[in-house]
Amino acid sequence: MRVGTAATQDGPRAVVERDGELLPIGDGATPLETLIATGASLEPAPGAAPLEGARLLAPLRPGKVVAIGLNYLDHIREAGLEPPQRPPVFAKFTTSVIADRDEIRVDRAITERVDWEVELAVVIGRTTQRVSEADALSHVFGYTVANDVSARDVQYADGQWVRGKSLDTFCPLGPVIVTADEVADPQALAIRTRVNGEIAQDSSTSEMLFGVARLIEFCSHSFTLEAGDVIVTGTPWGCGEFADPPRSLHDGDVVEVEVEGIGALRNPVVDVR
Amino acid sequence: MRVGTAATQDGPRAVVERDGELLPIGDGATPLETLIATGASLEPAPGAAPLEGARLLAPLRPGKVVAIGLNYLDHIREAGLEPPQRPPVFAKFTTSVIADRDEIRVDRAITERVDWEVELAVVIGRTTQRVSEADALSHVFGYTVANDVSARDVQYADGQWVRGKSLDTFCPLGPVIVTADEVADPQALAIRTRVNGEIAQDSSTSEMLFGVARLIEFCSHSFTLEAGDVIVTGTPWGCGEFADPPRSLHDGDVVEVEVEGIGALRNPVVDVR
Repeated sequence: MRVGTAATQDGPRAVVERDGELLPIGDGATPLETLIATGASLEPAPGAAPLEGARLLAPLRPGKVVAIGLNYLDHIREAGLEPPQRPPVFAKFTTSVIADRDEIRVDRAITERVDWEVELAVVIGRTTQRVSEADALSHVFGYTVANDVSARDVQYADGQWVRGKSLDTFCPLGPVIVTADEVADPQALAIRTRVNGEIAQDSSTSEMLFGVARLIEFCSHSFTLEAGDVIVTGTPWGCGEFADPPRSLHDGDVVEVEVEGIGALRNPVVDVR
Repeated sequence: MRVGTAATQDGPRAVVERDGELLPIGDGATPLETLIATGASLEPAPGAAPLEGARLLAPLRPGKVVAIGLNYLDHIREAGLEPPQRPPVFAKFTTSVIADRDEIRVDRAITERVDWEVELAVVIGRTTQRVSEADALSHVFGYTVANDVSARDVQYADGQWVRGKSLDTFCPLGPVIVTADEVADPQALAIRTRVNGEIAQDSSTSEMLFGVARLIEFCSHSFTLEAGDVIVTGTPWGCGEFADPPRSLHDGDVVEVEVEGIGALRNPVVDVR
């Protein structure tokens, strides 16, 4: 199933996307993250009418966004770094989450170097503590796509990466969540970025140093993962930072991030001052 | 007012603490963070009966915990560092939040060096974006106390501080929130830590490099602060890490952190393996 959240005249509604139509699920008022946490049915009511003119919002409001750095072998080679011994964990504040088509809004008083990072995003399905790698994927609700937009100047000046990666609008997420049963192997998905239509990143989740199952095992031994939490699993080669010369996003650019079989996010970049 | 959340037979209840008694507020089922966000009355119903045998939980579930590093001049001197140009921001995952009296549970397979950090915690009262320092305090709902428990070995090995500061149980918070109208000056509060009854940290919020108002201004220009978000504002001199020889928390220790006029948290340390 492909599930998400749509804006309607009556407010946001959890929906399933089927044959190009958005069908409401649940009782109408319950957010998708609550449906996931309670294990409620995600089937639309029999005969439910498709929502007309509804627009997809971010698929859910995560409890937390756990972010992983330096997790693609091609990116590690590109950056000239040693593979980390364990997954580097940081956070993106959930207030940075936006939807497909929303604007990435850049305050030039804060940052002049805005970069893209396509990432496979894992949505946790239930409370997860100290799971083994072998059991980890049974805790996945589904997969979606994230753009871990990064203010490189802020990230490097701060040293701690949280602020430069948590500026408002810096976490496009969606457009929908594909449930785990429809993703045969999360480590065999093409993953790419286009900037103004031109390929910038082009790789495969097979390049991950720590796969999804190992990331869940690792994280869940340090902190509890809850239903609706999202892990963004790192980005492959091809960020603007490592281009020669380095590239950044500018007012008017359009950045599109895509994971095979999951979906694509297309977000315009707009300077707000 | 002193407000928080209590465990009852019927589940968690938002409460006001008055004359040593806990009185239910709101409709009973609405969590305190929702009462704050909606601006609902925090007065108990006339004639409301005190809750018998209720235990305080963490006062609320924050939307996010924004943490500030290196923010006390006495701590900066102790560490032999230069004062930072701007507040260093990191995150504590909200799954680390525990209540007064709860156990700080330490997995010795993860960390051998667990440290204390008493902090004044600021609870945001409404959506806050790009506020000036002059207006910032009007966005504060109230103040509480946090212990920014830190796994120093994890923190330093990771480089990024999030994981070492987000281990489950590593954010004692509470015991209640004192509303802002009852805190005349947040920059004139004694702040201290006792480990097994002996003073370890003993300072004043007057030692903050960036005061509460400036922190809110700074954060709100990078990311939206929402009602129920918590900013933990840094710790003064006297962490175990900088003692000679360095000290850590061990199984059986009791750590008490206190901010004058707000309250104290007392948490035992327990090894879980």
